[in-house]
Amino acid sequence: MAHVPRTTALTRSLTRSLATLNNAPPAGKSPTAIVMLNMGGPSTVPETHDFLKNLFMDGDLIPLPFQSVLAPLIAKRRTPQIEKQYEDIGGGSPILHYTKLQGERMAALLDELHPATAPHKSYVAFRYARPLTDEAARQMKADGVKRAVAFTQYPQYSCSTTGSSLNELYRRGKAGEAGDGVEWSVIDRWGTHPGFIEAVAQNIERALAKFPAERRSETVLLFSAHSLPMSVVNRGDPYVLEVSATVSAVMDRLGHSNPYRLVWQSQVGPSAWMGMQTSEAIKGLARLGRKQVVLVPIAFTSDHIETLYELDLEYVKEGQELGMEVQRAESLNDSPVFIRALADLAASHLKDYSSGKIGPTSIQLEDVVREGRSLAIVAPDIVMGILFSWCAVAHLYVHARGLMLGSQHAKRD
Amino acid sequence: MAHVPRTTALTRSLTRSLATLNNAPPAGKSPTAIVMLNMGGPSTVPETHDFLKNLFMDGDLIPLPFQSVLAPLIAKRRTPQIEKQYEDIGGGSPILHYTKLQGERMAALLDELHPATAPHKSYVAFRYARPLTDEAARQMKADGVKRAVAFTQYPQYSCSTTGSSLNELYRRGKAGEAGDGVEWSVIDRWGTHPGFIEAVAQNIERALAKFPAERRSETVLLFSAHSLPMSVVNRGDPYVLEVSATVSAVMDRLGHSNPYRLVWQSQVGPSAWMGMQTSEAIKGLARLGRKQVVLVPIAFTSDHIETLYELDLEYVKEGQELGMEVQRAESLNDSPVFIRALADLAASHLKDYSSGKIGPTSIQLEDVVREGRSLAIVAPDIVMGILFSWCAVAHLYVHARGLMLGSQHAKRD
Repeated sequence: MAHVPRTTALTRSLTRSLATLNNAPPAGKSPTAIVMLNMGGPSTVPETHDFLKNLFMDGDLIPLPFQSVLAPLIAKRRTPQIEKQYEDIGGGSPILHYTKLQGERMAALLDELHPATAPHKSYVAFRYARPLTDEAARQMKADGVKRAVAFTQYPQYSCSTTGSSLNELYRRGKAGEAGDGVEWSVIDRWGTHPGFIEAVAQNIERALAKFPAERRSETVLLFSAHSLPMSVVNRGDPYVLEVSATVSAVMDRLGHSNPYRLVWQSQVGPSAWMGMQTSEAIKGLARLGRKQVVLVPIAFTSDHIETLYELDLEYVKEGQELGMEVQRAESLNDSPVFIRALADLAASHLKDYSSGKIGPTSIQLEDVVREGRSLAIVAPDIVMGILFSWCAVAHLYVHARGLMLGSQHAKRD
Repeated sequence: MAHVPRTTALTRSLTRSLATLNNAPPAGKSPTAIVMLNMGGPSTVPETHDFLKNLFMDGDLIPLPFQSVLAPLIAKRRTPQIEKQYEDIGGGSPILHYTKLQGERMAALLDELHPATAPHKSYVAFRYARPLTDEAARQMKADGVKRAVAFTQYPQYSCSTTGSSLNELYRRGKAGEAGDGVEWSVIDRWGTHPGFIEAVAQNIERALAKFPAERRSETVLLFSAHSLPMSVVNRGDPYVLEVSATVSAVMDRLGHSNPYRLVWQSQVGPSAWMGMQTSEAIKGLARLGRKQVVLVPIAFTSDHIETLYELDLEYVKEGQELGMEVQRAESLNDSPVFIRALADLAASHLKDYSSGKIGPTSIQLEDVVREGRSLAIVAPDIVMGILFSWCAVAHLYVHARGLMLGSQHAKRD
């Protein structure tokens, strides 16, 4: 059965039933693993402490001096405040719920779209919350996986996010935790994939529809991404460019129907971060007399504390207090358009990799360190190399100070 | 005669001859003005002082306390060093030469592409060098212009560049210097126009072709744009996003054939600017053992001091000293693909404006201040409004310090 063309939902549904009948994998065939990499978040409030500890222990995200000593102290100090925030959004982060759902539905579609590698099974590997990478690796080993795709769920690449997850996967893979002789490849960025752009655009259109038609075009779209310390930006991290490219593609898809800005949220501590800050932008728009805003989370694909607490409970409220009407475009969560995009991405990757058209990673990673078809390829990319410049030293101090001083916002999920 | 389809060079050439015969404007019909806005640069070394003085006097670019007193002092102090740089690149900036050439060829194409508004005449209005905006305005008045398009030659919008030029044009226009009752519209950004992207991509391909085919894909593309102070970025300036969108579109056009980074040049003074800096990136790549680089100017469309001195004389040399082979993608200069893109942009704008499909500016400017079809629309855009936030105060001091302390690099053209 060849690549299934995009067709009606009914046809797809029928095709799926047939696929299940006709393309049942040989009994005992080990699954192709699609490993969903993300930051994760505590699913219940009591998991908050371990989540924070894992986060502060990650030298790829936050390089601290004496990390193994400082990280537990900072995590402990921060826990009560962050626990409170998770209580306020309903007792935990929904990111595991949505990542599982996205992965399972994607895998079902993949069995249709690329039967050559069926059955497909999704594994969740979070960097800071359960299930952690080692848990995913153990399950893969138990399932006898021989072929695996590391599929970052961060659409845009940063050394601090996807880079950190790939490094962790590399360490676990090298230690044999996922089994021996697994053939790995990596989907390391996909910020302008048309299906992803379409899913975001549809959610924006739904939010815009809440404004009266005659005033709709006056609404400012504020795309909000998690910020990055300038020390990371200044060592060559591609995240700012890739998030910008996403926003530009979404605006093209929307026909530039509205004025827009890309702004940055979740800054922590007193060091310099990429701006303009989301909350400052809301205040600035209020000063200009702009009354209508749609907040669009553009670097998160599921709801978690940055959307449910920071956007919904803080910024929407701030805007309202300034006399504005602020709507929030929904996160992608269970969007069928988004899940179809994930499946299309993985299917193209599997097909192009099998045919030799692409290597195990994108050229942005691949071309830097060539160590054959193993996960070693993903570890030190161009950004990681530049890390060992003078920037790294400044970075240590600035970050340590920021974290030790504490701040009102300590939201990473 | 309708919109001329893109066709062979021969057909185009024939069409042009016919157009000239058949569509000669009525005698005495005043031209449609296409006003080419750019920063400009001293065409001869003795013009350097006036150029610098105009530059430091511009509060939209560099807000200084006591600007009218400080600006002449700083300009005087900087002049000898900058004069030396213009001597080193051949005795002046070629930006006027190329802007004139681009404008004249574009206007000739426009007479074919949009005869309804023929004849078209291009006017150069530089912000800091001759011909200044008032000179262009006087010439327009003498020519009896009734319809004018302000066409920024900065592909990507920044409050410091296009914003400043539009504000100056607004002041001159309001004072009646360009004549009375001129109907204005504005092309305020065009950073992802397919013709512009194609022209850049072709110049990159020519630079890549200088490397042996078997090593070509290892070459890192370093897109280099003029940096911006973080104080400007942090007040919501859209320049970083728009430059990123250009780079992303060029990489799509190139089929992601090479690893790449967007980096930033021409930082001045000790305050924080957008990074990674171009020269740091070259050093970082050298440390990683990367031997091949193509430098791509991505926010300048003509050669001037940032390309001819900073890129060609400084960075290429730095790379060579580190054992690298550094090629520079040519600036667009007299690229026929680029000039065709300018003509396509202006023709679409004129057509869509005439038919009422678009307003006098893009929605990014238009939707903010609606004051009818006059240049008033372009003055205070969303960024200008946000300028009057707490950022502005910090900005003043940081900049004044940076400029008074001086620096090795004072290159703006």
